[in-house]
Amino acid sequence: MVDTRFHRFAGPIALGALLVRAGRSELAGALAAPGQVISGVSELELAGPDDLALAAQQGYAEDLRRTGAGVVLVSPALREDVPAGAIAVVLDRPHELFADILDLLYPASTRAVIAAAGRDDLGAPIFERDVTLGANVVIGPGVEIGRGTVIGANTVIGAGVTIGRNCTIAANCTIDCAHLGNDVVLHSGVRIGTEGFGWLDFGRANRKIPQLGRVIVQDRVEIGANSTVDRGALGDTVLGEGTKVDNLVQIGHNCRIGRNCLIAAMSGLSGSTIVEDGVLLGGGVGTSGHLTIGAGSVVHGRAAVTKDWPAGSKLAGAPAQDIRDFWRELAAMRKLSKGEKRG
Amino acid sequence: MVDTRFHRFAGPIALGALLVRAGRSELAGALAAPGQVISGVSELELAGPDDLALAAQQGYAEDLRRTGAGVVLVSPALREDVPAGAIAVVLDRPHELFADILDLLYPASTRAVIAAAGRDDLGAPIFERDVTLGANVVIGPGVEIGRGTVIGANTVIGAGVTIGRNCTIAANCTIDCAHLGNDVVLHSGVRIGTEGFGWLDFGRANRKIPQLGRVIVQDRVEIGANSTVDRGALGDTVLGEGTKVDNLVQIGHNCRIGRNCLIAAMSGLSGSTIVEDGVLLGGGVGTSGHLTIGAGSVVHGRAAVTKDWPAGSKLAGAPAQDIRDFWRELAAMRKLSKGEKRG
Amino acid sequence: MVDTRFHRFAGPIALGALLVRAGRSELAGALAAPGQVISGVSELELAGPDDLALAAQQGYAEDLRRTGAGVVLVSPALREDVPAGAIAVVLDRPHELFADILDLLYPASTRAVIAAAGRDDLGAPIFERDVTLGANVVIGPGVEIGRGTVIGANTVIGAGVTIGRNCTIAANCTIDCAHLGNDVVLHSGVRIGTEGFGWLDFGRANRKIPQLGRVIVQDRVEIGANSTVDRGALGDTVLGEGTKVDNLVQIGHNCRIGRNCLIAAMSGLSGSTIVEDGVLLGGGVGTSGHLTIGAGSVVHGRAAVTKDWPAGSKLAGAPAQDIRDFWRELAAMRKLSKGEKRG
Repeated sequence: MVDTRFHRFAGPIALGALLVRAGRSELAGALAAPGQVISGVSELELAGPDDLALAAQQGYAEDLRRTGAGVVLVSPALREDVPAGAIAVVLDRPHELFADILDLLYPASTRAVIAAAGRDDLGAPIFERDVTLGANVVIGPGVEIGRGTVIGANTVIGAGVTIGRNCTIAANCTIDCAHLGNDVVLHSGVRIGTEGFGWLDFGRANRKIPQLGRVIVQDRVEIGANSTVDRGALGDTVLGEGTKVDNLVQIGHNCRIGRNCLIAAMSGLSGSTIVEDGVLLGGGVGTSGHLTIGAGSVVHGRAAVTKDWPAGSKLAGAPAQDIRDFWRELAAMRKLSKGEKRG
Repeated sequence: MVDTRFHRFAGPIALGALLVRAGRSELAGALAAPGQVISGVSELELAGPDDLALAAQQGYAEDLRRTGAGVVLVSPALREDVPAGAIAVVLDRPHELFADILDLLYPASTRAVIAAAGRDDLGAPIFERDVTLGANVVIGPGVEIGRGTVIGANTVIGAGVTIGRNCTIAANCTIDCAHLGNDVVLHSGVRIGTEGFGWLDFGRANRKIPQLGRVIVQDRVEIGANSTVDRGALGDTVLGEGTKVDNLVQIGHNCRIGRNCLIAAMSGLSGSTIVEDGVLLGGGVGTSGHLTIGAGSVVHGRAAVTKDWPAGSKLAGAPAQDIRDFWRELAAMRKLSKGEKRG
Repeated sequence: MVDTRFHRFAGPIALGALLVRAGRSELAGALAAPGQVISGVSELELAGPDDLALAAQQGYAEDLRRTGAGVVLVSPALREDVPAGAIAVVLDRPHELFADILDLLYPASTRAVIAAAGRDDLGAPIFERDVTLGANVVIGPGVEIGRGTVIGANTVIGAGVTIGRNCTIAANCTIDCAHLGNDVVLHSGVRIGTEGFGWLDFGRANRKIPQLGRVIVQDRVEIGANSTVDRGALGDTVLGEGTKVDNLVQIGHNCRIGRNCLIAAMSGLSGSTIVEDGVLLGGGVGTSGHLTIGAGSVVHGRAAVTKDWPAGSKLAGAPAQDIRDFWRELAAMRKLSKGEKRG
């Protein structure tokens, strides 16, 4: 469910009317129940009977079969996986209609988050006692800050953000679309809740997929200077309890980082990377998106992780492999090149 | 031509007098026309009859032969390539004299841009209607901002910058020496128009080459959180229409990025990289400078591009090669190492 | 010695009492001189007779033998290396007790630096003449700024920081725990003096090692946009005279960079990297920590330096090797893969 603290909802609206507004009257006309009310948009696994959800690719078939969504946009290949209780809107390239619908239901979301204006519905900020604000701190409507939290000078906190107790937020940070737990530390220049890099029609129109999710920063997380954490596209980007992130790290939309991980400087996690508990990432590690690094894994500096790895993996290289294979390959290479003249 | 909105010109001055002030009386004495007026400094291809330009290396011979510059500083090897209409000042290491002249004609440019002081000549900022400024936004003299543009809290916009209509500039950004088109989006912490990394006498004096160019950000460009775009040394760094740049990306001086490109997080483009239209760069891609990536190319994550590639290239690896060669090499390596004991 | 301009000292205290407060009465009880006063904590090589220091690993044996510290915490293996004048507190995992002691003697250091509050002991800031402050600049107690220095808008300067003469600090920077020389240039978004990434009990408790050092930025250093320089854990992170650092570079705690180095964009130096004078690092270079790159070395872009290299080295590759070996290996690889079918 899109969190309306961060993204204002322009509905509810009947499905038929919504499709007409999206310029798809032919789809509206084909509906058995055009009056079905849409009260929000959600991910398949969290959607309820008034929600609309998307299943564009085969990888979502499993989630689709179990969804509680009232309405699903699906590509023809997934038609058979729509559960009995859901209304299916079947079309090619459902992503495009989905983006149209997001723009209609949560209008101008990029600008609305940054402008942080017109959110009087959220009410005045609420501070518990012993909150310390540095000079020129800017606090949006509806912000809540817990007891004992310190906010450094010139930091900007956007509409609806909540920050727990005893947090330490350094100077010159920006926080949007996020809920922070207790004892969180953000060092200077951190950006939380920026938009993920999600586009349709790559290299031609580069149309933005609206970024309507949040960032959840759990207790005792620490994030280093000038690091960036994008909000979910839908749903959440999550940093688990006790996880520590170094400087200049990029965490893409919908990443889920477990508890007590360490992520060294200049690492970059592409969208929907799952890092389980207690994983160590060395400096400059990168990941392709939509993969899982199992609990307790150790990924050496500069590794580029390109696929799932089980718990306890020890990885190195680009593309990353088991570190024993990495060393073996390096040794083979060294031996081979001995036959060559020194360049 | 150096844009005097951003870099104040201390001239005009006669060429002979300029060389004397630069401590090169012997060069002044050798001039046939020491009274030739210098009204600005420019790149070879854009220079006019009152401009001074530089041709230090063989790679500029072609531009030199076609230049309209009134005066050119050239190394002896390029003497024959100076066109008939231009006055040639011939010397070894012309870069050094060129830097001296830039410092004389555009004094203290590093500091002048950052101080943004003493630019009363630019007049008061001009806003079209419906411009929204967040708290603590700082606007320099001569700034112009178009209708419907939103500027987030604590952002700093330097002297002379122009921003088009319906732009969305997030919090805590810094913009100097730049012209932005319409519908541009900058996410939080973006730095536009910082100085390029250009030095003489590497590793010894590390003398700065004055950075007197601009950044041109065309319509519908979007730039991710904490990314940096350096201004040209002379001339412009350009991001073409519809190009989207992710978080923590570095774009060096005088890069020219085409239209509708996508540049994923943590990529770094060295100075004078040319990226043609519709190119996709994966995460963590790097380029050596002074090279061209042809239109529609796809460069996979972590590739290090070291030379020109034609349109439609598909690249991977470091140094980057055709992706089929990359996979072939990886396969050969994997096969070879099977003979080795696992490390 | 921890610099009390940046980190307030809660002592002095007798060693016995300190160990009791740290919950180690058994160690206190075993002391011959429990009344020994502790007036500060220091690195082995700089410690004096009232200082406490740590020697946890074999690599510190040499420093331990020469230390002037009054008290040393050592692991059993190092017991024999404690010099005659020092009191040895011998225990397993001395790092953990050391962290406890740092927290007792310099309490809540993360928060204290960021809050910059309660430091009235430092007195009002002191400016020489001709200091120019941009709008919304925030200056902590005890800051000193030299003649002719310019500070850009929205920059935040923490308690006790000193800045020399004729420096140019751009907008939106953050400076803590640092002493800057003369003619230093920081571009926009630079973070100086943030905490190093130092933890105990990796991947489980992730306990922070208090970061109580400083950053020393010598004359004529220049640091590019959005780069980050962590303060020492104990002791200093140092950038030597005339060294120039590009955008988006990370410099870890206790790095020591020599004079007149050039460090190109997106390089990352892990903790305790020593870079000697006149070294050139290309873009995207990384280093493992605790190693030395000898004077005048040239490290090509993307190299990952994993061990010591002597003066004048020319390095490439990941892991980095002599560039001639790098090219030889690349050639062998290219030759080998010719036998494979193109992928």
